[in-house]
Amino acid sequence: MVPDTVNTEILARIDAWWRAANYLSIGQIYLLDNPLLREPLTKEHIKPRLLGHWGTTPGLNFVYAHLNRVITERSQSTLYIAGPGHGGPGMVANAWLDGTYSEIYSPITRDEKGMKRLFRQFSFPGGIPSHVAPETPGSIHEGGELGYALSHAYGAAFDNPDLLVAAVVGDGEAETGPLATSWHSNKFLDPLQDGVVLPILHLNGYKIANPTVLARIPEEELLDLMRGYGHHPYLVSGGFDGEDPLLVHERMASTLDTVLDEIADIRRTAEAQRDAGEDVTRPRWPMIILRTPKGWTCPAEIDGLPVENTWRAHQVPLANARDTEEHTRILEDWLQSYRPDELFDGDGRLLDDIASLAPSSELRMSATPHANGGVLRRDLELPNFRDYAVDVPSPGATTAEATTVLGIWLADVIRDNPDNFRIFGPDETASNRLAPSVYEHTGKQWSAEILPIDQNLVRAGRVMEVLSEHQCQGWLEGYLLTGRHGLFNCYEAFIHIVDSMVNQHAKWLKTAGDIPWRRSIPSLNYLLSSHVWRQDHNGFSHQDPGFIDHVVNKKADVVRVYLPPDANTLLSTYDHVLRSVDYVNVVVAGKQPQANWLSMDEAIAHCSRGLGIWDWAGTEKPGTEPDVVLACAGDVPTLETLAAASVLRKNLPDLKVRVINVVDLMRLQAESEHPHGLSDREFDALFTVDKPVVFAYHGYPWLIHRLSYKRNGHENIHVRGYKEEGTTTTPFDMVMLNDLDRYRLVIDVIDRVPGLGTRAAGLRQRMQDARIVARQYTRDHGEDIPEVATWQWSAEGSAGVSQEDAQERVEETGS
Amino acid sequence: MVPDTVNTEILARIDAWWRAANYLSIGQIYLLDNPLLREPLTKEHIKPRLLGHWGTTPGLNFVYAHLNRVITERSQSTLYIAGPGHGGPGMVANAWLDGTYSEIYSPITRDEKGMKRLFRQFSFPGGIPSHVAPETPGSIHEGGELGYALSHAYGAAFDNPDLLVAAVVGDGEAETGPLATSWHSNKFLDPLQDGVVLPILHLNGYKIANPTVLARIPEEELLDLMRGYGHHPYLVSGGFDGEDPLLVHERMASTLDTVLDEIADIRRTAEAQRDAGEDVTRPRWPMIILRTPKGWTCPAEIDGLPVENTWRAHQVPLANARDTEEHTRILEDWLQSYRPDELFDGDGRLLDDIASLAPSSELRMSATPHANGGVLRRDLELPNFRDYAVDVPSPGATTAEATTVLGIWLADVIRDNPDNFRIFGPDETASNRLAPSVYEHTGKQWSAEILPIDQNLVRAGRVMEVLSEHQCQGWLEGYLLTGRHGLFNCYEAFIHIVDSMVNQHAKWLKTAGDIPWRRSIPSLNYLLSSHVWRQDHNGFSHQDPGFIDHVVNKKADVVRVYLPPDANTLLSTYDHVLRSVDYVNVVVAGKQPQANWLSMDEAIAHCSRGLGIWDWAGTEKPGTEPDVVLACAGDVPTLETLAAASVLRKNLPDLKVRVINVVDLMRLQAESEHPHGLSDREFDALFTVDKPVVFAYHGYPWLIHRLSYKRNGHENIHVRGYKEEGTTTTPFDMVMLNDLDRYRLVIDVIDRVPGLGTRAAGLRQRMQDARIVARQYTRDHGEDIPEVATWQWSAEGSAGVSQEDAQERVEETGS
Repeated sequence: MVPDTVNTEILARIDAWWRAANYLSIGQIYLLDNPLLREPLTKEHIKPRLLGHWGTTPGLNFVYAHLNRVITERSQSTLYIAGPGHGGPGMVANAWLDGTYSEIYSPITRDEKGMKRLFRQFSFPGGIPSHVAPETPGSIHEGGELGYALSHAYGAAFDNPDLLVAAVVGDGEAETGPLATSWHSNKFLDPLQDGVVLPILHLNGYKIANPTVLARIPEEELLDLMRGYGHHPYLVSGGFDGEDPLLVHERMASTLDTVLDEIADIRRTAEAQRDAGEDVTRPRWPMIILRTPKGWTCPAEIDGLPVENTWRAHQVPLANARDTEEHTRILEDWLQSYRPDELFDGDGRLLDDIASLAPSSELRMSATPHANGGVLRRDLELPNFRDYAVDVPSPGATTAEATTVLGIWLADVIRDNPDNFRIFGPDETASNRLAPSVYEHTGKQWSAEILPIDQNLVRAGRVMEVLSEHQCQGWLEGYLLTGRHGLFNCYEAFIHIVDSMVNQHAKWLKTAGDIPWRRSIPSLNYLLSSHVWRQDHNGFSHQDPGFIDHVVNKKADVVRVYLPPDANTLLSTYDHVLRSVDYVNVVVAGKQPQANWLSMDEAIAHCSRGLGIWDWAGTEKPGTEPDVVLACAGDVPTLETLAAASVLRKNLPDLKVRVINVVDLMRLQAESEHPHGLSDREFDALFTVDKPVVFAYHGYPWLIHRLSYKRNGHENIHVRGYKEEGTTTTPFDMVMLNDLDRYRLVIDVIDRVPGLGTRAAGLRQRMQDARIVARQYTRDHGEDIPEVATWQWSAEGSAGVSQEDAQERVEETGS
Repeated sequence: MVPDTVNTEILARIDAWWRAANYLSIGQIYLLDNPLLREPLTKEHIKPRLLGHWGTTPGLNFVYAHLNRVITERSQSTLYIAGPGHGGPGMVANAWLDGTYSEIYSPITRDEKGMKRLFRQFSFPGGIPSHVAPETPGSIHEGGELGYALSHAYGAAFDNPDLLVAAVVGDGEAETGPLATSWHSNKFLDPLQDGVVLPILHLNGYKIANPTVLARIPEEELLDLMRGYGHHPYLVSGGFDGEDPLLVHERMASTLDTVLDEIADIRRTAEAQRDAGEDVTRPRWPMIILRTPKGWTCPAEIDGLPVENTWRAHQVPLANARDTEEHTRILEDWLQSYRPDELFDGDGRLLDDIASLAPSSELRMSATPHANGGVLRRDLELPNFRDYAVDVPSPGATTAEATTVLGIWLADVIRDNPDNFRIFGPDETASNRLAPSVYEHTGKQWSAEILPIDQNLVRAGRVMEVLSEHQCQGWLEGYLLTGRHGLFNCYEAFIHIVDSMVNQHAKWLKTAGDIPWRRSIPSLNYLLSSHVWRQDHNGFSHQDPGFIDHVVNKKADVVRVYLPPDANTLLSTYDHVLRSVDYVNVVVAGKQPQANWLSMDEAIAHCSRGLGIWDWAGTEKPGTEPDVVLACAGDVPTLETLAAASVLRKNLPDLKVRVINVVDLMRLQAESEHPHGLSDREFDALFTVDKPVVFAYHGYPWLIHRLSYKRNGHENIHVRGYKEEGTTTTPFDMVMLNDLDRYRLVIDVIDRVPGLGTRAAGLRQRMQDARIVARQYTRDHGEDIPEVATWQWSAEGSAGVSQEDAQERVEETGS
């Protein structure tokens, strides 16, 4: 089926396609009009602002043209990842050549008129962006922020056994950290269950203003590096010093055949191993190093300076094409060098012979449904989370590790969705206590060596663990963008490592939401555990709740933040987020044993509202307004708030306290700012317009102010949260360090409710004493004072420290 | 000088040191009392909460012991970087053994009493954190967030030609992106100007709950990888299956000698090349792969499960040491296995013979001044920035590219500080327009191949460019922490890539500030350009001003944010930040040609105040309050605000407009929140307590609310800023997309100032029309409407669009 050698006729066709794509790319960057050079080029035909990137484009087009051939010959479903995504005009050009562009964007017809529109819209106000973007057919990868081409490629390949992902990696991008480690993704790919990633390292030698590192090390060193990454490298080099491109086409075509044959062999070997009941050992997947000149085929020199094969070809090589007649001529000659008359007919249509290089229908890389993952999305089969509820006969009566409980449900999510759901984590799935449960029906996918001592490592599994948050995020993004589901569990502090990646994904979601042909994809779901308040082992470096702040800067249409206070609310929340599409859902939940507050029915009702009054915790009288509102969001703040409410209940029984718990943080925002925002009327009814609100919040306090600053009563909201004080210490010492502890909350109430009298003054003093005592006890004993460590909610109220104890201890410590 | 073979006596001494360090490490993790096991161990001697990490510690101690020998023998100044910094007890143990710890912390004496305190304080409330941290002598590297060991090491080595940096890289850490690319740092090190980095890849095989990738690939593949990274790898493996550690000591000692000899050879070769006037070619630096069991020397099994050489040894292998008699015995036996009686004398002092392994004085790795960089810090010689001022005869009369102007000054900063100042950037120094000026007296340091076509590449230079923000940040941190100065210039959007790193550095600065023996180090300075408003080439992926929001979450003592509106204010700001210590300074400035507003004298006064009224721009009458305040921060918002002020001046001449520009964002915060915060009295005098304030801000608008929410008049502050709308478009279209444009600001004023009458209503309509016209013009022509593109400040005021034009054009477009 596959020809031994690629014949001259086919090579000529590949070359013609390549020239056409290059021509169209340059046209997009430069031309407003006269797209086929029917008349001499004048400055009126040239765009006033020349924006875009030429340098990487001929390489992207070269690979695209060659892939077209092998896709057709082998009927190989293929997804193209353009790592150097700033080569946007190239991907658009190819999509226009193979017809997809006109199918999707009907005004951009496959003729001269459409070509003119194609050119004009590029990087033009109201048109399309300069990079590969959601607007680009066939793309799941914006190449603006570099580094994620391979992780996206592997994410797309997981559970798509018939898919080939051709991932072009720029040699600039290759210098980034995320890309450098993502080569190791090949230790996490199963040749039977998953598709294949073919990395093509595009060594064109230059970045914006510098050579690239990998282009300036000896070839043998580069080959060692690729071998060290576990690949079998093939080198295709050419196009330098005016070498005839046909010779390079021949080498590329032949290499591509060899490589695809080798991939086929690898898969056959794996099948044979499986059939023989043997271990499917890690293959040495091939990869290609493609060394061609930067800006290949552009003018060798402009104004006496070398351009082709230098950094000067990176963006717009002829930045002043409009300014002098000489430059306009250079541009015209450059465009003519592709011989457009031999490529397009009188109407501006691509000649049939050239067009025949394109695969048909969905085999066209620009039309693959994998690049519009929503088309392939199947909703998850979710086991009824109510069946996994912990028993909560009354608030605080039982305890659970919330993430452990979630893990039991997730195990069954995995069982029921064996091919389109994965859990990603940076070696923290066990630490976050989703494991061991989640391994009940699966294991951690691992293609490297497995020893007898290992646990839960399997060749094909649903849990992906590698100590790289970038890899976890990139893989998951690739998986979601191709229509599958997943979650990323991570220590809360270190999710900041992917701040910039989630930025870019949120931007993708925002833009994709406005593109009619893009279908909804599963949400990007985070489970942040081992959070700021419980980093007993690790201390300050592991204490940072700021990811929430980062995420809420993104468009309100896209972001959701949940802080379930216990196990049942976490179950309900996660069922919700796994059903959702097109969001970034941030869920923060603890892994330590903690009191359960709500039964499952209560949890569902509470999560549906997103926030609500916990009547049982407060001391309101029906029909009257409370004197003070204690609000809380997050599991530890909820515990401290309830303890404070308990102290108030016992010691100031006449004080009318309302307790509000917030699960869905976005409920605090104004309706006008966020789709989840409460109406002002609802907000006022809950928080009052004039009573003091003491708000205990999981993260940096100002976020609550930011979310609520448009509310009527917001001047009265006093927020306690993390104020960047931390170290290796006990849980209660941590909340005291940050003034989020129960005693401090009671003091806050006393300081804010007027007219409480001497009894309150005495309580205030006792609370201050209790803080001193608790701190001293911790310093002396290395653990939390028993009154706090063993404190339990009681409907009668309790102080967590008795008056007598406190006084005695204060005297003892002499503080 | 260097012995051919290391004799048995020395090996025994190394082993004894290692045993002592291991003993002390375990003591820190487990013991409250009975530090020398003078009596049988009981549960009362054991800490109630066992926190810390054992797994990596014996490896760290092993390397430390061996380095001690070669440092002494070669008088080699050495800095130790513990990549697996969670092995904190190891580094503390070694510092105690060599005496530094007791010199710095006098209560922790070098005897039994001190040992008991040493043990107790570790991971204990009020004590020291569990990781290598600022509290740890000899450290510049917190190992909590993994991935930066090598970049810190190289940063420390730059411009320290006599320094050896021994960088232990954990095999878990090696999976992170930043670490994976940081191996390539060896293409940026000059063997003459810089010190040497000796990477020691510590392959102990396991992470928290998984094997490591690099431990599970064939040895030849790993060696290929290291060769591909440009290293000459040496493998030292041992300690498995109960192998006598002395055999491993012998191999390590011998390898270390070989490696250090090879390094000496490399440097001699480089000197010879230099002396012969030849190019100093890139050497193939040696590195060591140290393969030893995780948790080496801990119990092989506990409760029937393998522990040594498994992931179970990662944290506290015997987590229940206190709970059963059997476990207590296991702990005692484990401790006794190091034969403490042969290590410490009756008073608990390390025996002299063993102690003699330590180098003397500052050669001790725990005492090296390089790890307390403030000791070595020399203030920069800063050329008088006033001499670099651009001429500003009147506001807006001249234009400049602010960063270009800064670059001219920085060139001379480089000239005058040839060995302690560097500029770092991810291939953006030219794009950000600091270049070409900054290359006047230097070049970009580059040890890989240099071709004749290259520009400004040199073997030893002051500018470091690699396409990895992680590398830039890590190198700079290492450079600063060892007492030198620098700045990081970056596209604004992509500085988010290092969010998490700046978190950690800010935490380091906060903690170090409270440690008496730590001296102040130069500030971490950012120059963020190619900012959100001017990403004409790249579009949405490159548009994100959120780094400021991220940074202001850190401690107010540490962070500073500056938004100089023009060239002279940027010069003044940068002179200030380069003189500062212990801060994270974020400076955002444009690179495009833009009007200059202030002469240098005015700029200095304005920057000193941090914000102020621009009288010349407003229409206040002396002695009366304004009707409205137009505030602005950032270069583009300043331009739009001045244009709006100009429109108002011309069209509503009776309206009293005050214009305030803010350079130092932290001035907006309350005095109680930030040291730069204005007093309420000052704030009220500037912003009024009851007049509308229309605030045009560079970034996400809510930050202004967050900073000012405690202010009296804050209810009246209306903020315009970036609301996450972007694409590849013109500069003015970008501000219109985000409602930050001059016309919108005028409308905002009209909507907020009561009683302006019909003339204002007419103006409002014209402004709305002007927006429609401007947008349509841009869609039609691909560039900004000339009225805006060529607009200049005039004291008489101008609309930027005439009434007639607008009406005509609206009619034309039919909008």
